Amino acid sequence: MTVPDRISALRAAMRRARLDAFIVPSNDPHQSEYVAEHWKAREWISGFSGSAGTVVVTRDQAGLWTDSRYFLQAESEIAGSEIILFRQGDSGVPPYTDWLLEHFGPGNRIGIDGKIISGAGYGHLLEKLNRKALVLVTDQDPIAESWSDRPPLPQQPVYAHPEPYAGSSRAEKLAQIRAALVDLQADAHLVSTLDDIAWLTNLRGTDVDFNPVFYAYVLVQRGAAMLFVDAPMVSEALRTALKADHIEVLTPEALPQMLATLDGGTLLIDPENTAQALIDLIPDGCQVVHGAAPSTLLKAQKNATELAHLRQTMAKDAQALLRLYRWLEAELPSGRVTEARVAAQLQNFRAAQPNYRGESFPAIAGYGPNGAIVHYRPDPENSSTLRPEGIFLLDSGGQYLDGTTDITRTVALGPVSAQARRDYTLVLKGHIALARARFPVGKSGYHLDTLARMHLWEHGQDYGHGTGHGVGFFLNVHEGPHGIRGAHRGAATTVLKPGMVISNEPGYYASSQYGIRIENLILVVPAPEHEGFLEFETLTLFPIDTALIDRSLLRDDEVAWLNDYHIRVLDTLRKKVEPEEFAWLVEKCRPLPL
Amino acid sequence: MTVPDRISALRAAMRRARLDAFIVPSNDPHQSEYVAEHWKAREWISGFSGSAGTVVVTRDQAGLWTDSRYFLQAESEIAGSEIILFRQGDSGVPPYTDWLLEHFGPGNRIGIDGKIISGAGYGHLLEKLNRKALVLVTDQDPIAESWSDRPPLPQQPVYAHPEPYAGSSRAEKLAQIRAALVDLQADAHLVSTLDDIAWLTNLRGTDVDFNPVFYAYVLVQRGAAMLFVDAPMVSEALRTALKADHIEVLTPEALPQMLATLDGGTLLIDPENTAQALIDLIPDGCQVVHGAAPSTLLKAQKNATELAHLRQTMAKDAQALLRLYRWLEAELPSGRVTEARVAAQLQNFRAAQPNYRGESFPAIAGYGPNGAIVHYRPDPENSSTLRPEGIFLLDSGGQYLDGTTDITRTVALGPVSAQARRDYTLVLKGHIALARARFPVGKSGYHLDTLARMHLWEHGQDYGHGTGHGVGFFLNVHEGPHGIRGAHRGAATTVLKPGMVISNEPGYYASSQYGIRIENLILVVPAPEHEGFLEFETLTLFPIDTALIDRSLLRDDEVAWLNDYHIRVLDTLRKKVEPEEFAWLVEKCRPLPL
Repeated sequence: MTVPDRISALRAAMRRARLDAFIVPSNDPHQSEYVAEHWKAREWISGFSGSAGTVVVTRDQAGLWTDSRYFLQAESEIAGSEIILFRQGDSGVPPYTDWLLEHFGPGNRIGIDGKIISGAGYGHLLEKLNRKALVLVTDQDPIAESWSDRPPLPQQPVYAHPEPYAGSSRAEKLAQIRAALVDLQADAHLVSTLDDIAWLTNLRGTDVDFNPVFYAYVLVQRGAAMLFVDAPMVSEALRTALKADHIEVLTPEALPQMLATLDGGTLLIDPENTAQALIDLIPDGCQVVHGAAPSTLLKAQKNATELAHLRQTMAKDAQALLRLYRWLEAELPSGRVTEARVAAQLQNFRAAQPNYRGESFPAIAGYGPNGAIVHYRPDPENSSTLRPEGIFLLDSGGQYLDGTTDITRTVALGPVSAQARRDYTLVLKGHIALARARFPVGKSGYHLDTLARMHLWEHGQDYGHGTGHGVGFFLNVHEGPHGIRGAHRGAATTVLKPGMVISNEPGYYASSQYGIRIENLILVVPAPEHEGFLEFETLTLFPIDTALIDRSLLRDDEVAWLNDYHIRVLDTLRKKVEPEEFAWLVEKCRPLPL
Repeated sequence: MTVPDRISALRAAMRRARLDAFIVPSNDPHQSEYVAEHWKAREWISGFSGSAGTVVVTRDQAGLWTDSRYFLQAESEIAGSEIILFRQGDSGVPPYTDWLLEHFGPGNRIGIDGKIISGAGYGHLLEKLNRKALVLVTDQDPIAESWSDRPPLPQQPVYAHPEPYAGSSRAEKLAQIRAALVDLQADAHLVSTLDDIAWLTNLRGTDVDFNPVFYAYVLVQRGAAMLFVDAPMVSEALRTALKADHIEVLTPEALPQMLATLDGGTLLIDPENTAQALIDLIPDGCQVVHGAAPSTLLKAQKNATELAHLRQTMAKDAQALLRLYRWLEAELPSGRVTEARVAAQLQNFRAAQPNYRGESFPAIAGYGPNGAIVHYRPDPENSSTLRPEGIFLLDSGGQYLDGTTDITRTVALGPVSAQARRDYTLVLKGHIALARARFPVGKSGYHLDTLARMHLWEHGQDYGHGTGHGVGFFLNVHEGPHGIRGAHRGAATTVLKPGMVISNEPGYYASSQYGIRIENLILVVPAPEHEGFLEFETLTLFPIDTALIDRSLLRDDEVAWLNDYHIRVLDTLRKKVEPEEFAWLVEKCRPLPL
């Protein structure tokens, strides 16, 4: 089927459902960042494969709304179809809700799949459409009717994440959730988010790329816990183990009837992450409490076992990177090293490490101008060839049973401009300022973001992305509830607590020239000698390229931080690498003069 | 009448009005920071004279809610009455709304004066009381009935703030407001806030202490403008001048009937600043648009004339301070210099300057431990005597026809501890970091607050107040809509724009030992060589005591900033002071070694 065929089929299904327009967002039912093929309806209907975008199809029009990251890609992917590109953020471009209000009036029926839109998203949409008395329909699924070769729901086997890694048993975690329910005066809690479910059950899966999660729901009650998951995904042995921990395994089809039993009780849900179709199933006699899932904050504060593993994992991830950069130095003169080959080679080196389970996200290997494209991903068929000059940005991460990594290094492959060295040094100054930050208990990421930017600002420069995202433990590489951004929104408003892992990744992007980013993972810890204050421990341990530094722009205290960091890198890796690898590291960690 | 007599009289009036409880807040009808004696009902009913607090009187109980700044003062001022002190912020102390919900039930009538509570405040209170079906009554005023010797409403003469000072005519300002009304699709705008009214009409008054405002309302329509003010306050000449600018002067009694004429139109009001009783007078057929008064943002961005005056005013304010500190150095050995005498003497020196109209707030002159009390105000009868040792904090400001000032200096009167020097230097580092900040267009105060605190945080220290408040031009010394604070709330969320004047006042308070604060006024300006970036120009020009600096804690770039600042102080004041005064300044501005 071509995209025009698909749109025709969708319109036929829309007519049967008496829908005047149908909205196709990028969501899955769990509001996941990465979704299974089965849930890529927006890509199917439009051909547009970017991570963010919404398609609206009416009886005679079709539009795609996406943001500036994807304008070029979207244009090329929807070329030849009737779909009009709406460039979000450009002046005069209405959001799709406003566009619907312009084109439709009282009584017109606008559909969206209630199985994938969150309760909060539904509320916002309803409020908008109500302004002109449009009717919002969520119980019709014309995509399902028209998508004949739709990939099935993934049913990959679920496996245990052993307690020696997790550091806390299912029983302990359930007890923590139940204690939170008592505080919130709730009897029951429906968990929709896949990272929360994986953490709570100490299980992992392979249903989606990069995130070791599996499609499921969990219902926790005061005296019972149920995991709703397709039957083939759970082995008998695992089922028995879960039973022993008082977790009953049921199929997702059983969820509606379990929700029906909540009549008269009090249920905690997070409307941001719970599908409207599930909310519709909650009986009228059940009181609903809105709030974040208690597991989200518990999961973010890593326990001592997780942290001990994570420190080891940082060392083995550093070994893989060390081998990659040594390989790169050796192969570069051949003229046959492409960005894609670097990414593949890095994956090979990581795969050789114990407990490796895959990449934590698609590696960004950007040489020269490609480094300035923040979400760049090299095309395996046709990526740039590295030469012994200019700047190479490599942002990558691994999933290990014993931790998730995410690291960016920017290195000189040969001569670089003075401007590039200045920009690199300003980014490094911001990285160091955040790494060294001490701050009172009770502060959030938005209080700290300026530290990473102030040196760039001094020179009239900035970067257009956040400074830090939370990171899971053998879970999602982007995992809140915390984060570091300038705007007071979302994750940046979560109070930072000891045990939270977060990225420290300021950057600078000179369009069509080069990109710079320096990223380590950092851990929130109590400040040892300052009661009531917190600080960061840098977890990632790998040399920061000193060849790109303009020493005259660094203060002595910043140089001291960098030299100390490199001593820690050497200390940690000394006994773990081969002698010639260590010699290479010693060279890279050579202290800068004070 | 004693406080118990007053409470009895109030209860009698409450019985006649069938009120079960009556709430007495600190407000006036314009949500002013300083209120006229007539509006000090909360002080009258309780004896408590602090700036913030709420009294609730029931048929058989009475409580005062105030915050930690005022616990000691409140305890002593309400002693001997039946009033119970509720310490806001202490654990287990309910807000007065929760306390009302605990003590009353469905149908109980809770009163508050609708003339002084804002529409927004009314909304919050109503929402709370509705939870238990309590009835909120706003049209009964038992205070008016029981307060027999109530001071009359102030009716001080209003005077013109001449255009050569204001830099913009009434007609120009009205045109700006009307342009904003067109954008907001409103026909009319009711202005309640006294600073907005004074700015818009280029008038000033003396109805309240410290703020040169007068009690009035303004109604701006597309084709008319009305100033509602008590008749004796406006001379015939002024009335004629206003008439020439198409502003009609009416008495406040005419406001209700003017509001009644708005039926069928669209009225802009700010619910945060408009009394509920006025909102109740808006006809049902008038559409209400909620938003900030357009004058608030216009007023905050000072025009070129205002800024030129303000720079001159900073110089004359510095002269007054110079004379004060020289006097202090001469008189200190006498052992007869008290905090109160310093404050009085400073007022004398300021009063000798042209265009002086009074203090912009009660001077805070805190010697030694008193400096650690953030809102300290020396008692004229009994204040501390300064000795040639320790630290003296002086926070003061003047109102001049040509500008409003606010400056804090902390000086050593003799030997001080190494700890005090360290703390002072950390505060200075924060002051310098903010003074030198450059930042992208679009940032708010909350993005910058950390710059002023980061050096204290590094040492596990902090201060418990905001970093900066907006300042008016011959208007309120605390005047938004902008400000610099860590929490994303109120003024700290307003985007900073060129022309805004704001204080830069980090501090540190060692309880029972000393207080440190270094405050200059700074101006938001475009960064000269960096398109899209803003920075600050420091307006206040007076030496920062270098005797308190621990040079080893300052970086060379910080010392360079301080030395440059002192050169600017000398340059600016050179031609304006006597030779021996200049010699004193040269001594105080001696550069620190780089």
